[in-house]
Amino acid sequence: MSQQPAPIVIPMPSFIDELVTRAGALDDEPARVGLAIALSQENVERGGGPFGAVVMAGSHVIAGGVNLVLASGLSIAHAEIVALMRAQQALQSGVTALGPLALYTSTEPCCQCFGALVWSGITRLVCAATTRDAEEIGFDEGPKPASWTEELERRGISVQLGVSGAQAREVLREYARRGGEIYGSRPPGS
Amino acid sequence: MSQQPAPIVIPMPSFIDELVTRAGALDDEPARVGLAIALSQENVERGGGPFGAVVMAGSHVIAGGVNLVLASGLSIAHAEIVALMRAQQALQSGVTALGPLALYTSTEPCCQCFGALVWSGITRLVCAATTRDAEEIGFDEGPKPASWTEELERRGISVQLGVSGAQAREVLREYARRGGEIYGSRPPGS
Repeated sequence: MSQQPAPIVIPMPSFIDELVTRAGALDDEPARVGLAIALSQENVERGGGPFGAVVMAGSHVIAGGVNLVLASGLSIAHAEIVALMRAQQALQSGVTALGPLALYTSTEPCCQCFGALVWSGITRLVCAATTRDAEEIGFDEGPKPASWTEELERRGISVQLGVSGAQAREVLREYARRGGEIYGSRPPGS
Repeated sequence: MSQQPAPIVIPMPSFIDELVTRAGALDDEPARVGLAIALSQENVERGGGPFGAVVMAGSHVIAGGVNLVLASGLSIAHAEIVALMRAQQALQSGVTALGPLALYTSTEPCCQCFGALVWSGITRLVCAATTRDAEEIGFDEGPKPASWTEELERRGISVQLGVSGAQAREVLREYARRGGEIYGSRPPGS
């Protein structure tokens, strides 16, 4: 163990940036959350979990993410976390955010992503499908505070729920119909 | 944005594995949490945040971690998350865990790491310094459920608090005495 240790590496599938590039104008919040939902849908097509997220500054995409738990074997690699890590790395690499950062996500955050949002630097969260929608297909969102939206608002993160919820819920249901793996309170791969 | 996207990469400082290699027998929990505290202390020496963590299977270290928020610019890169991601990548690379996984950490988890533990696959959490100790030097542990230990226990993660707490608290206070940066509810680097 005295050699140079391996870095943590999470490979990115190329379809994320391809979908971002192909997205039309993202002038309003339904369009932005629509991109998060499109990412969730494409991830299902490619065997991943039914979740997508985008970090934006106004109408400009800083980074997109999808759930990579199954692909990476990392339990942390939820769509929100992937998008946030990519956005923070992009901003360090010279990408400029013209305005405050917002996270658009296809489903309300689980307990882990809720906590991560607190330290992330975003000032707005917009969600499509609900915690209950995720639970209805068997996912477990974990022990979030009952007042999780208020906790975020108290820390300067405005929250909007239920934008294009039906569209996102349809992706969750499609994942269930396909018999997609319901990972969660188990180590990835077990 | 149509080129192959960059992976997320978190470089690892070599002192983590060096400290693990130099650690003596780790037959009991104070020794294991002592390694997490030693990691926190060394991270302070190198300009990082005063937090360390180790994932173990019995007396065998799977992976150590330290807080890399300042070094990586990633708000997610708390010691627990670094140790868990490294452990999951090690286990995928052929490292075998002889027995259930436990996480030893120099300070009780924040809201993000609490949530991440739920999905991590560990079945035991042992902490040294308390949430209050971290708050006393200015860190913010965020909106964890008041009953966070019970929430973990309910999900099959046994929790032991306050092991070698005074020793870990001393590292936190040393960080404060040195004027170490109290990052938190702001984007890294802001």
